[in-house]
Amino acid sequence: MGKKLTKREEDYSKWYNELVVKADLAENSGVRGCMVIKPYGFAIWEKMQAELDRMFKETGHENAYFPLFVPKSLFEAEEKNAEGFAKECAVVTHYRLKNDPDNSGKLMVDPEAKLEEELVVRPTSEAIIWNTYKNWIQSYRDLPILINQWANVVRWEMRTRLFLRTAEFLWQEGHTAHATKNEALEEAEQMMHVYAEFVENFMAVPVIKGLKSESERFAGAEETYCIEALMQDGKALQAGTSHFLGQNFAKAFDVKFANKEGKQDYVWATSWGVSTRLMGALIMTHSDDNGLVLPPKLAPIEVVIVPIYKGEEQLDLISEKVNPLVKELRSKGISVKFDNRDTHKPGWKFNEYELKGVPVRLAIGQRDVENGTFEVARRDTLEKETVPASEVVNKIEFLLDDIQKNIHKKAIDYRASHITEVDNFDEFKEVLETKGGFISAHWDGTIETEDTIKELTKATIRCIPIDAKKEEGVCVYSGKPSGKRVLFAKAY
Amino acid sequence: MGKKLTKREEDYSKWYNELVVKADLAENSGVRGCMVIKPYGFAIWEKMQAELDRMFKETGHENAYFPLFVPKSLFEAEEKNAEGFAKECAVVTHYRLKNDPDNSGKLMVDPEAKLEEELVVRPTSEAIIWNTYKNWIQSYRDLPILINQWANVVRWEMRTRLFLRTAEFLWQEGHTAHATKNEALEEAEQMMHVYAEFVENFMAVPVIKGLKSESERFAGAEETYCIEALMQDGKALQAGTSHFLGQNFAKAFDVKFANKEGKQDYVWATSWGVSTRLMGALIMTHSDDNGLVLPPKLAPIEVVIVPIYKGEEQLDLISEKVNPLVKELRSKGISVKFDNRDTHKPGWKFNEYELKGVPVRLAIGQRDVENGTFEVARRDTLEKETVPASEVVNKIEFLLDDIQKNIHKKAIDYRASHITEVDNFDEFKEVLETKGGFISAHWDGTIETEDTIKELTKATIRCIPIDAKKEEGVCVYSGKPSGKRVLFAKAY
Repeated sequence: MGKKLTKREEDYSKWYNELVVKADLAENSGVRGCMVIKPYGFAIWEKMQAELDRMFKETGHENAYFPLFVPKSLFEAEEKNAEGFAKECAVVTHYRLKNDPDNSGKLMVDPEAKLEEELVVRPTSEAIIWNTYKNWIQSYRDLPILINQWANVVRWEMRTRLFLRTAEFLWQEGHTAHATKNEALEEAEQMMHVYAEFVENFMAVPVIKGLKSESERFAGAEETYCIEALMQDGKALQAGTSHFLGQNFAKAFDVKFANKEGKQDYVWATSWGVSTRLMGALIMTHSDDNGLVLPPKLAPIEVVIVPIYKGEEQLDLISEKVNPLVKELRSKGISVKFDNRDTHKPGWKFNEYELKGVPVRLAIGQRDVENGTFEVARRDTLEKETVPASEVVNKIEFLLDDIQKNIHKKAIDYRASHITEVDNFDEFKEVLETKGGFISAHWDGTIETEDTIKELTKATIRCIPIDAKKEEGVCVYSGKPSGKRVLFAKAY
Repeated sequence: MGKKLTKREEDYSKWYNELVVKADLAENSGVRGCMVIKPYGFAIWEKMQAELDRMFKETGHENAYFPLFVPKSLFEAEEKNAEGFAKECAVVTHYRLKNDPDNSGKLMVDPEAKLEEELVVRPTSEAIIWNTYKNWIQSYRDLPILINQWANVVRWEMRTRLFLRTAEFLWQEGHTAHATKNEALEEAEQMMHVYAEFVENFMAVPVIKGLKSESERFAGAEETYCIEALMQDGKALQAGTSHFLGQNFAKAFDVKFANKEGKQDYVWATSWGVSTRLMGALIMTHSDDNGLVLPPKLAPIEVVIVPIYKGEEQLDLISEKVNPLVKELRSKGISVKFDNRDTHKPGWKFNEYELKGVPVRLAIGQRDVENGTFEVARRDTLEKETVPASEVVNKIEFLLDDIQKNIHKKAIDYRASHITEVDNFDEFKEVLETKGGFISAHWDGTIETEDTIKELTKATIRCIPIDAKKEEGVCVYSGKPSGKRVLFAKAY
């Protein structure tokens, strides 16, 4: 298989698709719109899961598991939510196949095994979960409920792309229940901060925290908090959302509790999620024309060591130098691979690990053995240097830390240069077409204007930043008054 | 809610059902046959997952993820497998709901959104995975493939019971591909040993390793290795299976490779799995009429500390003693909960943690503060003693270790006394009805005899133990010659 990638500036979209497959992250499957996440890609996702899971637990959440299926009657209970997902859901109608009498060896749906009530494969779990919470909540003493679920969900998207938009994807979904509006709002906001902390500190992807406009909100939410990232092609990517659901689901499922004063009230809710879509954000933020660039904190292999040798004797001498180093690195919790396979040449291995984004690569040949050195290369800048064996562990530790910081800074700088303040609609369109990125502009707050701008330019309001400062101005499209700027962009 | 359980000897089945719900492990959901795994139950499952996952990785396996859906044409490719699962599978036929014109606010399946090909919700993933492996394997250099997946699967069982048999359940499924028959056989056998090691050492549940008879084999397997446990009611429970699949799936999906000699050959396969069913085995093996008994290695809370006090001042004095202890235990990696809630009385808490199987309970009251002591209780034997504060950490460490060993030993002793050698069919029936457990008997090796015995007694061959010694005898039913004994039992 050719490992050479299309260049980003030639065709960013093609570059992405090739990279995902060639770096062994994921591939399309025999099922329309569903992906196979390959071991190397899954190992990154596992590292992301582990950190997120730890952060959820540190903020008081517990994991649980709810059914894959939502009976249609529950699915339709919260109208807005149902409306939002009805058009793209997989529906189970039968529970048995039988031999096809006209077609030996083939199976057919058994018409006698039709379900009385159809089951929707969960596109999200509010309905099934609130139907469950109903039985768990009687009084304020039963609150809050702070639960997270790691699960697969299905949304029958028409146009799919690996990690970014697939019919089935993996995610976590938090579902919390509270006695007061304020507590639920605080929870929703807290989870936005947790997501931002994870994405910035582990993925090294800078994000803007904000609120969604009404038309971009989650179906059934009263407020949607979000974190928005910017990809290298100037398009935005929604990296995570956290919803304040008000009492909508409590009302739809009749979930009341006795408050401290003994009065019955509906419960307040939040839900929040991030998905394998984050893999897309990770890949697109840092990678280059040579392949993947991974933040060390999420790299399945942090350090790879490639021996350059002829014959067993030379390999033995090299192994003598490498084995204690491997041991020392592992004792420090650094994941290291010594690739001493004789089936592939060093040059092939260099390309392979570059393509797979391994942060630090060591090479050691005959001359290094004699001189007591290693060649050390960093993936982010592709810089190489020769380092004495006595200093190599320190060097590696420094590099892992430095690469994490450097790619974060690079992404921050890119984003900083791609937020453009714009005050009239011609400029808006020009910036969008020529430069891309976030456009910071005044908006009159109406759905109509938002829709029109979207229709004319394909840009949507990505968020109303939570730290947006008050500033009197006029809407970039309608000229009506506005109190602060919002961020527009084309988005994934 | 009444927390009192039905006694085991009154109604074992009822005791189990009550225990699962009252100990907050799981409950039935609004979807027929599907369960909700509650946070406390899920925390146990997470601990099991973590250990198994570590063991899989130590034996060279990687995790990946494959689609939830299997297109019908792939599902039916391996005939025996298809036949085995066709009768109990959930089938997706449509990808959209629409508003019901006759029923305002209701949704209906959109007949225009019928799938061209139906999708089966995976009951197991051999089909979708081997359809994927086909593209991954060209030569012996691509082998072995050693992949595991953590996933949900669906089998439309008619009679369901929490954890033991549910329409949807969680499991892991390993799927490996090998160049030689021998290597695949070794892999299948290895995973049986890995399962046994986990179940014995972490779950403290003794198991017998063996082979399934032909009629009890996995659909599509040439050999099924298994581990069989024995519950307190004398019924067996299959705790894990590992299948040697021969070349069946490789042939069904046309997966060939060039071997070292350059010749094309079909790939050899294994698959192996354990599921949330293990939770059922864990619960039924150790628990008693007071509730759950958990092995310390899998207990979400290993130690609970209950203060006995009147008023804030007394609680403060107690907390002064407890806080440093909590800190010390946590630094040793012991999970500990200090339940200082003032909403519940100590007696209620004692019952609650007994019901939930917390291995060690400490209580501390005014007198203990004065004397510098704790009351220490162990869940397995319900023994209590007063321990000086200076010795309490050592005591806890001893108890956690001792409880793990003790409940294992107790289960081993129970099983030892419930394996009965039987040499004629009257005795067979009598032992089965009066004593239960495993019956070790000669069998003529035919499906006919096995079927007849099952029909007459409901007992099946649980396994042909791998360490069964050669012994000339005659079949307990047919009187025909037999070379070794096999184990019969009624089973979950």
